[in-house]
Amino acid sequence: MAKESEEMDKLRKIREGDVRTASRLIRNLEDDLPEAKSAIKRIFPHTGRAHVIGLTGSPGAGKSTLVDALISSFRKKERTVGVLAVDPTSPFTGGAILGDRIRMQRHAEDPGVFVRSLATRGALGGLSKAVGDAVHVLDVMGKEIIMVETVGTGQQEVEIINHSHTVIVVLVPGMGDEIQAIKAGIMEIADIFVINKADRDGATQLYSELTAMLNMAPEFTGGWRLPIIRTGNVFDSGPFGESMEELAVAIAEHYRRLVEKDLLGDRMRRKTLVEINEALRDAILEPILKDLTESGEMDRIAGRLLRKEPDPYTIAEEVARRCLK
Amino acid sequence: MAKESEEMDKLRKIREGDVRTASRLIRNLEDDLPEAKSAIKRIFPHTGRAHVIGLTGSPGAGKSTLVDALISSFRKKERTVGVLAVDPTSPFTGGAILGDRIRMQRHAEDPGVFVRSLATRGALGGLSKAVGDAVHVLDVMGKEIIMVETVGTGQQEVEIINHSHTVIVVLVPGMGDEIQAIKAGIMEIADIFVINKADRDGATQLYSELTAMLNMAPEFTGGWRLPIIRTGNVFDSGPFGESMEELAVAIAEHYRRLVEKDLLGDRMRRKTLVEINEALRDAILEPILKDLTESGEMDRIAGRLLRKEPDPYTIAEEVARRCLK
Repeated sequence: MAKESEEMDKLRKIREGDVRTASRLIRNLEDDLPEAKSAIKRIFPHTGRAHVIGLTGSPGAGKSTLVDALISSFRKKERTVGVLAVDPTSPFTGGAILGDRIRMQRHAEDPGVFVRSLATRGALGGLSKAVGDAVHVLDVMGKEIIMVETVGTGQQEVEIINHSHTVIVVLVPGMGDEIQAIKAGIMEIADIFVINKADRDGATQLYSELTAMLNMAPEFTGGWRLPIIRTGNVFDSGPFGESMEELAVAIAEHYRRLVEKDLLGDRMRRKTLVEINEALRDAILEPILKDLTESGEMDRIAGRLLRKEPDPYTIAEEVARRCLK
Repeated sequence: MAKESEEMDKLRKIREGDVRTASRLIRNLEDDLPEAKSAIKRIFPHTGRAHVIGLTGSPGAGKSTLVDALISSFRKKERTVGVLAVDPTSPFTGGAILGDRIRMQRHAEDPGVFVRSLATRGALGGLSKAVGDAVHVLDVMGKEIIMVETVGTGQQEVEIINHSHTVIVVLVPGMGDEIQAIKAGIMEIADIFVINKADRDGATQLYSELTAMLNMAPEFTGGWRLPIIRTGNVFDSGPFGESMEELAVAIAEHYRRLVEKDLLGDRMRRKTLVEINEALRDAILEPILKDLTESGEMDRIAGRLLRKEPDPYTIAEEVARRCLK
């Protein structure tokens, strides 16, 4: 009973925007603690009010600088802002502190802004689950705009980005041939393209290529004319000085369209399917893996496989027969 | 019985290095067909002879150019070579053809070289499973050196790279602050660092930083003095004209050390644990997800969650109670 009222107290504090309680819960999510899960169960019914914006792009594309400029832009309009800087490199380091992200801390004194880095050491898929849950925490804190920033190329990053309503893909000129494939790959998830460092060589070519690609594949965009915003020198009054405003307008327009065309439900559904997939992994596969590891059977399995007795699929089927009804 | 002998015939053809049979099996692995799984069960006992080399790095780091140069270098020593160019962007596009990778096709006429792009549309983790299995196919074909090339930052890429014995991390100068974190993140998996495009501004600084970082964290490297090889202008007779030979020597030395110090077993074990994890996902979680989707229950779950009835974890626990013994 004491535990129950303590939990209710924590929920109340988070709903009042208490930074310490929210930060502690996010840390517990990173560590995948059981109490974090029960907190999310309590929080979940109160979620669903924020506009969640995902930003993804290659390392060095300048995503954090953009996020920082967007925070300022939203704050001028008196919107409250939460930011999750997601660090997929963390399985090794336990979360790196990035110079770029420290810059966002200039907003640290502003109670309308809450910025957190997020990292996990957990299993594949664990980071995406932590992101989804951390978004719920920021939502319940009352942040009206939540930005999720992550390095993006692989499928895991896509799962992370799928927790968003509006996805911004940040590109930079001069990244070589391979970026072409990545551009093609992210076509399906992008709602807004940003060409950052647009004063660099190759920006015009990148803009032309991207425009051509969008014209070739209108079926991906579902009638939404994907804006391509050129940014750079964001803190200068240079040729792209107005670009942040242009980006903020594009974001607002995309959200308005989601609401007006009744598409927000589709996005929520996509978010929901990602979440239930992760929760099922957590409830079904993780306990089996934990049990195999703790009982020492995983070691025996590894030994059998090294002796080719007989192969991974046959062993996995044996385990499945034993565990599944 | 006819089926049985047909299967044995395919296995024999792959062991003789038949390109068409191997290619068809790899395509079936990409599509996650049941016949691919039974083929891998047959193949698995014959695997384990190849030296598997993983190459990872940011988009635009020039990995494919390096792989191409390494193919030539290994062929001069009359080693047979297999290459898997892994494309994690493919969940959207079904596999992009990259300009870079087409270049490797100059080896297409050489029967001692087998190059394949690999992509999957499947679930999270599906790509890594396909890579592990495709490595087995190339191994059984008799390729002595197998190179696995992938864009790497997130955890999924690490799972892909963990199918290797020797991991090469390719860096380029001038990628911004964020690369610092990635460098820290990949520390634990790298066996050899390459600084490519080493004639660019910032290469000397990157080399110094990397050296300093390696000196600071010797515990990660287990006594192996991680080589940092500077490459660039690989087809010229420029300042890095000898660098490919240097890289080939470092690769051979790393493998020799694994064998001499009896560390190959550890790497095989790491590969094995990755494989059994993926096979368990395949045998346990995938059938449950398939069943929920096909029965229409996934739709009902999504509906419940959109109405906040009650939350993803509670629903996943219900499903787990119903499915697990």
